[in-house]
Amino acid sequence: MSANKKPKLQAQLYFCCAAVALMAVLPIAESHAADPLPSWNDGPTKRRIVQFVKDVTTKGSDKFVPQEQRIATFDNDGCLWSERPVYFQLLFAIDRVKQLAPKHPEWKTKQPFKAVLDNDMKALMASGKKGLLQLVMASHAGMTTGEFETIVTKWIASARHPRFQRPYTDLVYQPMLELLAYLRANGFKTFIVSGGGIEFMRPWVHKVYGIPPEQVVGSSIKTKFELRNGKPVIVRLPEIDFIDDKEGKPVAINKFIGRRPIAAFGNSDGDLQMLQWTAAGKGPRFMMLVHHTDAKREWAYDRKSHVGRLDKALDEARRRKWTVVDMKRDWKVVYPFQSKR
Amino acid sequence: MSANKKPKLQAQLYFCCAAVALMAVLPIAESHAADPLPSWNDGPTKRRIVQFVKDVTTKGSDKFVPQEQRIATFDNDGCLWSERPVYFQLLFAIDRVKQLAPKHPEWKTKQPFKAVLDNDMKALMASGKKGLLQLVMASHAGMTTGEFETIVTKWIASARHPRFQRPYTDLVYQPMLELLAYLRANGFKTFIVSGGGIEFMRPWVHKVYGIPPEQVVGSSIKTKFELRNGKPVIVRLPEIDFIDDKEGKPVAINKFIGRRPIAAFGNSDGDLQMLQWTAAGKGPRFMMLVHHTDAKREWAYDRKSHVGRLDKALDEARRRKWTVVDMKRDWKVVYPFQSKR
Repeated sequence: MSANKKPKLQAQLYFCCAAVALMAVLPIAESHAADPLPSWNDGPTKRRIVQFVKDVTTKGSDKFVPQEQRIATFDNDGCLWSERPVYFQLLFAIDRVKQLAPKHPEWKTKQPFKAVLDNDMKALMASGKKGLLQLVMASHAGMTTGEFETIVTKWIASARHPRFQRPYTDLVYQPMLELLAYLRANGFKTFIVSGGGIEFMRPWVHKVYGIPPEQVVGSSIKTKFELRNGKPVIVRLPEIDFIDDKEGKPVAINKFIGRRPIAAFGNSDGDLQMLQWTAAGKGPRFMMLVHHTDAKREWAYDRKSHVGRLDKALDEARRRKWTVVDMKRDWKVVYPFQSKR
Repeated sequence: MSANKKPKLQAQLYFCCAAVALMAVLPIAESHAADPLPSWNDGPTKRRIVQFVKDVTTKGSDKFVPQEQRIATFDNDGCLWSERPVYFQLLFAIDRVKQLAPKHPEWKTKQPFKAVLDNDMKALMASGKKGLLQLVMASHAGMTTGEFETIVTKWIASARHPRFQRPYTDLVYQPMLELLAYLRANGFKTFIVSGGGIEFMRPWVHKVYGIPPEQVVGSSIKTKFELRNGKPVIVRLPEIDFIDDKEGKPVAINKFIGRRPIAAFGNSDGDLQMLQWTAAGKGPRFMMLVHHTDAKREWAYDRKSHVGRLDKALDEARRRKWTVVDMKRDWKVVYPFQSKR
């Protein structure tokens, strides 16, 4: 800008620039003013979340955390979406085995497949870890990664949850979706760190949670690269590679992310070590457990549940003053479709 | 803005707004105009890089790739920094063994440690894979991840390369640093996918390459989470977890990133499968090999080299018209310190 301009014009220009600058800033200020967590009831849980985010994002504060270090990790089953009657991935495996059954007549008399084909959940559970592993391998291995992605994508679009008769991806927690978005709006990088299969989650989590595939950590089976008629494929092998649960979670966080989270969110004893690992870092930390207390809108379970058991982690959370979400008390709505009532 | 304002003021305001808008846009336009790859000589290699980036970032073009899918993977040794006389991580292992030797009197007579203490590189190499593995385990395992990070950080800051008498991180390729920055400026997410140790790279790659820890994929040893006097630690175990080389690279890309890259950069047969995997995706692709042809400024080697052998991959690159960088011809400077001459 030339220094020879008339003072009056200069004043107008400055005024104008200030106005334009203000216009650029306003939408941000506005979004801060609006409640970023509208599905959370006011109370200590919501206040603690907001205070933590304010602390780590306020420049000059002794609790400020540089943006690149704002890593937040989330369990999936029971933390971002429901896990009842059983983990949804097990229901996927069951559907898949039923679909493959015509090619495997021997399954009619062989456990755990017989239990699946008979819809006998009790017998299936009685087959134990070994049985479930056989089920997973029969349904998750023996195809290329591209083929598996197609299978998962089709299932997630078409399968319906037995209680709600809706796609499984409708059974995500609206308050947690808001929390994910709120953290990201404040410079956090959000990761999933789940006991679920990494390739079972990746086809749909970006659309549903806004979390891209490269920020998904999970359990895996072994895979193998090969050339098939000159075309490179990655084949899924019937062998466990890694179980991302309990002690496995901090190990996987270290391997995949290579930074310690400053915030971690879980709901079961399978998340305890992830929260311990997060808590043990220097500087401000946020550890949270979702406690399933709402039998009406979702499910109520904790210490004795066959899935998502919350026992030791609940004790440790209370002892160490980690944040425990009381789903019934803290959440205005559970599922997005309930908020539209 | 009120509709009752005087036309003249309104015109001034619009003029001013346009000026401010222009000011906001100018720096971007300018950065596009300036050469983003000043250390690359003009020629077919540079033109192909620039054309590819233009193709995938031009909206409306049939080669346009949405930003989230712009994944680029880079090998490290011999692609982003030098790998002679041997992989720098091996020199780290050697230094570490020498440092630990006082606590291990038995090493004086036991291979491969004797070879290290005698500075007998020939005997060390003769110890083969088994010997090198022993060396890696003695130097890389048996401490917590935090302790290992400190050890690497100290070494990378203090060790000097035998030929150049400079920190190893000075031996990075200036043209590749520019390429990384150029891709990122065009919405690419840049990853390292290296045979090197994932935890050997993470402490320094962010500062040196601008690649954050969570975008580093590499080889790993097993680790274990445990509570030591109530304090959570992750301990490094003397057992190979994964070798991120050859067929391992696409497997690791699939596991860690979960998307197929649209561009991949390597320099040896260890990168061939990564480039094949990248090439086999749909849409525009860019595969590049750095060919070490400059004995004066760096090193010249390919088909018969003991490190970074480039043989099958060179043949395939020529057959499939992948881009091959001729370091001597294509690079104005190799190392950043040479550009300051």
